[in-house]
Amino acid sequence: MSNLNKDNVVDLFLNPRSVAVIGASKNPIKGGFRIVNNLVINNFNGKVFPINPNARGSVAGLKFKKSVLEIEEEVDLAIFYVPNRVIPGVLKECVEKGIKGAIIEASGFEEVGEEGLKLRDEIIKITENFTKMRIVGPNCMGLTRIDKSSNEGDKGGFFSSFGLFSEYKRGNIAIISQSGMLNGGYLVFLFSKYPDLGIRYSCSIGNKMDLSEIEFLEYFLEDPTVNVITIYLESFKDPRKFINLARKTRSLPNKTLILLKGGITSQGQKAALSHTAALSENSKLIEAIIKQAGVIQARSFHELFQLARTFSMIYNSNKTLPKNGNVSMITGTGGGGTVTADLAKQYGLNFPKMSDATYSELVSVFPEWMPPNRFALVDLWPAMEKAAMNNIPPPKISGKVFNALMNDDAIQGLFNMLFCSSKFKWMVDVDLMLQHVTNTKKPTFFWLIGENDEVMRLTRLFNENNIPAFTDLHEMVRMYKALVEEAKNKSMNEHAN
Amino acid sequence: MSNLNKDNVVDLFLNPRSVAVIGASKNPIKGGFRIVNNLVINNFNGKVFPINPNARGSVAGLKFKKSVLEIEEEVDLAIFYVPNRVIPGVLKECVEKGIKGAIIEASGFEEVGEEGLKLRDEIIKITENFTKMRIVGPNCMGLTRIDKSSNEGDKGGFFSSFGLFSEYKRGNIAIISQSGMLNGGYLVFLFSKYPDLGIRYSCSIGNKMDLSEIEFLEYFLEDPTVNVITIYLESFKDPRKFINLARKTRSLPNKTLILLKGGITSQGQKAALSHTAALSENSKLIEAIIKQAGVIQARSFHELFQLARTFSMIYNSNKTLPKNGNVSMITGTGGGGTVTADLAKQYGLNFPKMSDATYSELVSVFPEWMPPNRFALVDLWPAMEKAAMNNIPPPKISGKVFNALMNDDAIQGLFNMLFCSSKFKWMVDVDLMLQHVTNTKKPTFFWLIGENDEVMRLTRLFNENNIPAFTDLHEMVRMYKALVEEAKNKSMNEHAN
Repeated sequence: MSNLNKDNVVDLFLNPRSVAVIGASKNPIKGGFRIVNNLVINNFNGKVFPINPNARGSVAGLKFKKSVLEIEEEVDLAIFYVPNRVIPGVLKECVEKGIKGAIIEASGFEEVGEEGLKLRDEIIKITENFTKMRIVGPNCMGLTRIDKSSNEGDKGGFFSSFGLFSEYKRGNIAIISQSGMLNGGYLVFLFSKYPDLGIRYSCSIGNKMDLSEIEFLEYFLEDPTVNVITIYLESFKDPRKFINLARKTRSLPNKTLILLKGGITSQGQKAALSHTAALSENSKLIEAIIKQAGVIQARSFHELFQLARTFSMIYNSNKTLPKNGNVSMITGTGGGGTVTADLAKQYGLNFPKMSDATYSELVSVFPEWMPPNRFALVDLWPAMEKAAMNNIPPPKISGKVFNALMNDDAIQGLFNMLFCSSKFKWMVDVDLMLQHVTNTKKPTFFWLIGENDEVMRLTRLFNENNIPAFTDLHEMVRMYKALVEEAKNKSMNEHAN
Repeated sequence: MSNLNKDNVVDLFLNPRSVAVIGASKNPIKGGFRIVNNLVINNFNGKVFPINPNARGSVAGLKFKKSVLEIEEEVDLAIFYVPNRVIPGVLKECVEKGIKGAIIEASGFEEVGEEGLKLRDEIIKITENFTKMRIVGPNCMGLTRIDKSSNEGDKGGFFSSFGLFSEYKRGNIAIISQSGMLNGGYLVFLFSKYPDLGIRYSCSIGNKMDLSEIEFLEYFLEDPTVNVITIYLESFKDPRKFINLARKTRSLPNKTLILLKGGITSQGQKAALSHTAALSENSKLIEAIIKQAGVIQARSFHELFQLARTFSMIYNSNKTLPKNGNVSMITGTGGGGTVTADLAKQYGLNFPKMSDATYSELVSVFPEWMPPNRFALVDLWPAMEKAAMNNIPPPKISGKVFNALMNDDAIQGLFNMLFCSSKFKWMVDVDLMLQHVTNTKKPTFFWLIGENDEVMRLTRLFNENNIPAFTDLHEMVRMYKALVEEAKNKSMNEHAN
């Protein structure tokens, strides 16, 4: 899987031809076993050399070597899974061998104070200030590149995390993270919770002693397989460069940048200091950076990935970002409509007045005693009752209303409530609905309530078709608002150019 | 299931001895069938009379009657499931029969304008201004009382909604709602999503032509089986009375009031007007009511029920509401700790400095090169690594840290991160953890990540034990903050008295 961006040093780390695993192990509960095993079982398309001076025999069919100096072939990259104090000695051998990059997973560096700072200085000396060798980490969980979906049988990619990756899917999302959790437990959670979620890269950058978010961001901006770049940061390595790269992102029609910044409060900064040695940053400064950069900001990991999932689907389905906050809704419950109207307003979204043509279409399917609203919030219940009385299949009515709203120039997108029930299937024609949604460039989000099993089944079906579906109105509205924000970001850039 | 509060008119509506179902039907897809059927299959402990002048034979084993006037026994309550225009005629017969209460489910009253207002006036005349007969609705989905859990076999309760209730559980939550959805689709969703969620009453009050949130709230304040009162309102029937009842709630140690107000923005008010004919209320006035009332405010249905679930578990497990915002956290991921610290700060929660005794306990299990924080945010990873190296089972360490934090007077509660994996079970001893959590009066919330199946399994296990568990840090922090708010509400009242 070669990349267009061979000049960027990140290519060495994400597409190495050969890797040495320092601290490889035969013991299945050890991370040094799992790193080798992940590479082998997932068909990494390169050479793997397990290194451990104390091990005999082989792991995953590969013979141990005592040192990288025993390897005859060229080695691109070393993955270090050994305690911090052992690192300098082995690193010297790696430099001697001519290895150009190292991923260091151990903690116990800048974040632990004096002893860690001494270790860091040693590494700087050995690598001649990172000229002989580039470093990712320390205090990280490695890098992951996903080429295929594991259930295709024909796997592929590069895996340097000791997390377990047995189920995964390739997609258009790249993750850059100062929390190893995202490359470990959280990714496992996401892949098992959302079987349709695809990831292209997941990069744990730890204390970023050398490489940081900057190089990875540059790399992903050039990579056409990536649409959504998801970042968790505890500190900005270079705020000015970050802002410039964020601005560049805005100029690219197929890229969106989503940021969760940890340490935006004094309390968070105290926590970040002991985690990745992130220095305190002034909250006002952080705010200014985020505002100037024009990125989509998340407040929790859950929100970060709901945003990533949503944008991923929007890009996959080639929808148009909404030009403004004028949205519409079809609901079967007035209470759901009222609460959505409140939330929408709070997020700056409006249900505009429909055109006369749209209104006429709606009037024709509503009972006389209960005409529709003039504004684009449609409580469909009376129309469904009328249809049932006249022996018209209700899905025909909802389809007609859907198309009328989507053809209205005043409306940029739609919220669609769906009651999910195995007992009331006649009320809904999901195939017909999918057709309608696929036929418009305007984004449609679904709000699902009903029997949980049916909600889950339809969520998966919608996601397979790149249609976002939610059970929480607040989340649905927040996600839609992000699309509007991003459209605004991109148009700001147009005006600037 | 008699109630202590027989004087309140609501008792007639929630504990009737006999009901007539106006508009009963043999056709299983009609609501008039399902109301009768729900009563029969769920063992309603009273008499049921299906009324329909056009039906022959019987439904659910009960013979149709043409009119309530054909019934020889006394009838407490009539449930109307007929179109709006038919209502006045039948209602007259009900008054003649001496029926004291009616639930009217049809829409097409105040919310549709002139014709509806005429119908309302007719009802007022027939009931002699609600002196001959009290009304719940119109435009509602009936009332539900749940006495037992349906999977116990021995069912029981009262069901006047045409929603399907086949799986449910009795609990300590009462719902009052101006959206029928809560008594229909949403309740189905909740029961199937959270098998441990129990509901005592669910009351859809519609346009509240006569009875409103006031009478139901009064009733639930007197009912010892109810701890959590969950309200969705589109308008306040009587703001002053509402504030007084909310203040009374604060004086009761075992009651909490949670409110979702629809129509808090101009856009939401437009929607509410066409839904329940709710008149516009000034946003500032609404804010003032909520503030003076001192209720817990939700922003969406999802949040409303997450709050209800959380308080329900807190009351069930007899935990103490946290006296202040001083909380602690045990995490296995520094990033999760940092983001929680930010969110906590934003919600006014603090990780305080630990006592020297607590700190010493922690120091003893941490490696020298990576001592714990002095403040109550514990990244347990280094201690787990040390334990593993010394062949100590990691659950022993987490238990020790848990107990140390909970015994610290400076700390009122705890967030506990748990990595859920069927492959790493040795890292966690769930039974031991449940024991620890049960042994303290201070609330513990879990944050679960990992394999989705395992996350779901443990969520259910924790919920069965009345321990709140979340996958979103933001939600976890928001819920904990609500406990602190409620403790403050209750203490304000103490000071006032």
